[in-house]
Amino acid sequence: MSQENIKDSEVDIVIGALQSDLSSFLNEWRPIISRFHLIIVQDPDLKEELNIPEGFDLNVYTKSDIDQIVGSSGSTFFSGYSCRYFGYLLSRKKYIISIDDDCFPTKDSMGNLIDAVAQHITNLSTPATPFFFNTLYDPYCEGADFVRGYPFSLRSGVTSAMSCGLWLNLADYDAPTQALKSQLRNSRYVDAVMTVPARALMPVSGINIAFNREAVGPTLFPALKLAGEGKLRWETMEDIWSGMCAKVVCDHLGLGVKSGLPYVWRKERGSAVDSLRKEWEGVKLMEEVVPFFQSVRLPQTATTAEDCVVEIAKTVKEQLGRVDPVFARAAEAMVEWVKLWKKVESGSFPGI
Amino acid sequence: MSQENIKDSEVDIVIGALQSDLSSFLNEWRPIISRFHLIIVQDPDLKEELNIPEGFDLNVYTKSDIDQIVGSSGSTFFSGYSCRYFGYLLSRKKYIISIDDDCFPTKDSMGNLIDAVAQHITNLSTPATPFFFNTLYDPYCEGADFVRGYPFSLRSGVTSAMSCGLWLNLADYDAPTQALKSQLRNSRYVDAVMTVPARALMPVSGINIAFNREAVGPTLFPALKLAGEGKLRWETMEDIWSGMCAKVVCDHLGLGVKSGLPYVWRKERGSAVDSLRKEWEGVKLMEEVVPFFQSVRLPQTATTAEDCVVEIAKTVKEQLGRVDPVFARAAEAMVEWVKLWKKVESGSFPGI
Repeated sequence: MSQENIKDSEVDIVIGALQSDLSSFLNEWRPIISRFHLIIVQDPDLKEELNIPEGFDLNVYTKSDIDQIVGSSGSTFFSGYSCRYFGYLLSRKKYIISIDDDCFPTKDSMGNLIDAVAQHITNLSTPATPFFFNTLYDPYCEGADFVRGYPFSLRSGVTSAMSCGLWLNLADYDAPTQALKSQLRNSRYVDAVMTVPARALMPVSGINIAFNREAVGPTLFPALKLAGEGKLRWETMEDIWSGMCAKVVCDHLGLGVKSGLPYVWRKERGSAVDSLRKEWEGVKLMEEVVPFFQSVRLPQTATTAEDCVVEIAKTVKEQLGRVDPVFARAAEAMVEWVKLWKKVESGSFPGI
Repeated sequence: MSQENIKDSEVDIVIGALQSDLSSFLNEWRPIISRFHLIIVQDPDLKEELNIPEGFDLNVYTKSDIDQIVGSSGSTFFSGYSCRYFGYLLSRKKYIISIDDDCFPTKDSMGNLIDAVAQHITNLSTPATPFFFNTLYDPYCEGADFVRGYPFSLRSGVTSAMSCGLWLNLADYDAPTQALKSQLRNSRYVDAVMTVPARALMPVSGINIAFNREAVGPTLFPALKLAGEGKLRWETMEDIWSGMCAKVVCDHLGLGVKSGLPYVWRKERGSAVDSLRKEWEGVKLMEEVVPFFQSVRLPQTATTAEDCVVEIAKTVKEQLGRVDPVFARAAEAMVEWVKLWKKVESGSFPGI
């Protein structure tokens, strides 16, 4: 595999708007994202009109667009952080980059502005190496290579399907951790990208992520909705759940997932202690979710991301459905999502 | 699992001497290693007497000690870089740290001297997390924690059995890579330690390594000797082979392997082009070695590192022995090593 050349026109930047005033967010990102097409999806629960500065090439989708495509039930499906998935669904581009609207560009340890978009594109355009660990991290980075003992037959790598970026300042901790260590801020800049090995599972965060939409788009969806889910990241699990699906699908299809650079600067929003009072189900659910995904195996007949999601949904229903009704609902949502994805792909909604 | 407290008296620093003048090596390391006990093993092929500066607490072992324990065949077993394993065998300490004699202390990206020994001890004294990947690397590092979605039941981790450090300047590349990219130097300081996930295999380098001798000592041995093996690192495979055994054994016994910090500064030695002329077998062999170790499974009856090595040796003989005689010899050497290890453990050599 050689390096792919990704054109600007092949990329959509998808922003879920949980706040109506996007001016400081978009203005800070302007030097990095202004040459790309943007898809902004307004949280259907957000009533005020969005404030979007001039000078961007963008589409904005609101509750009425969601209702038109999915019906009025769609507003629940795509509420809160899940609104971004409506953008994943409607994008016609090969690659998507998505960053939460409380994140801003930051600097590396030398003080240089980080171009998070360029770094995600580099991660996706260079191969991944999931089948053997390279101790010097991504061998395709400038100045790096494969170390002694790395089999030559594995050095060409596989297609990189996901790029999971990280966070400086307020990292993506859960509500209990953030409430217990309220002063905890991430200031460690780790100058590395690595392929997460095949069969190793990970908590994929949706805060700062990029992916090959053609390869794994159908695996990223808002299926697992917590009862007490609110408008704060640590109250959500939809990205962790779909990230587990995506990783299992990547392993099955022989695609790679990278983690590490780029970093974004994540600002504070909300009180972790208030979130804890909602008796967050996430802690309990992950104890079931991780062993489940570690054991799930997909049949050889599942050759596309859509097939794989339907297969996983079937197994979720059988094995996890009886543990907690939240999983049975997730399985149904996954099947619904694939139907919707195929409908949009087939061009059933020419007006959008 | 909570953090262990490792005492200085529980650590041996093992140095294989491939050159007779160790004065600059030991003097540069003095501030970092002088409070520990050192074991220096002279390459049995090296005829000159060692030049060792004053002021260290150490034992030196030479060809005559090797002959006394292993018989005269031992000189081949422990020749070149393999001489260090004689130190692993004779140590009575719980932890071993071993660094090649062409490596020197270096500085981090802030210009501070790196205490590689302290970092290895930190890596071994804090738990490892092989069963789920933490995107913010080692959660036990200061200022870090487990990210959202990490199951609480896995946060206590498991015992860390190996700490694999890295190299600045001349990294541990193989002869073809170094010959092709003769200007390639590693200058990327990645400020991270991570647990290599369970079931992910890796090329363990013996250049800069530490381990829990009680837990995995028997898995680190000089079994795979290449026909054209010389006195240069890129001509050797013994550490890569035993590292694969060690990782498989750690996975089986539920122990963790960490990779990343600390870095050492590795100086040049020898010509990669000359090594290539020897038709290095390493490239060809790794194509067999990696799929073999990926498929090997140990029986539940193997509950110690010694048991596991004997089981792996059996499977090597059966499955790889017919591919190349070098593997059949490796299997025999593994069985021999375990016998030797048990003999030394039982106190059969009180004079040493």
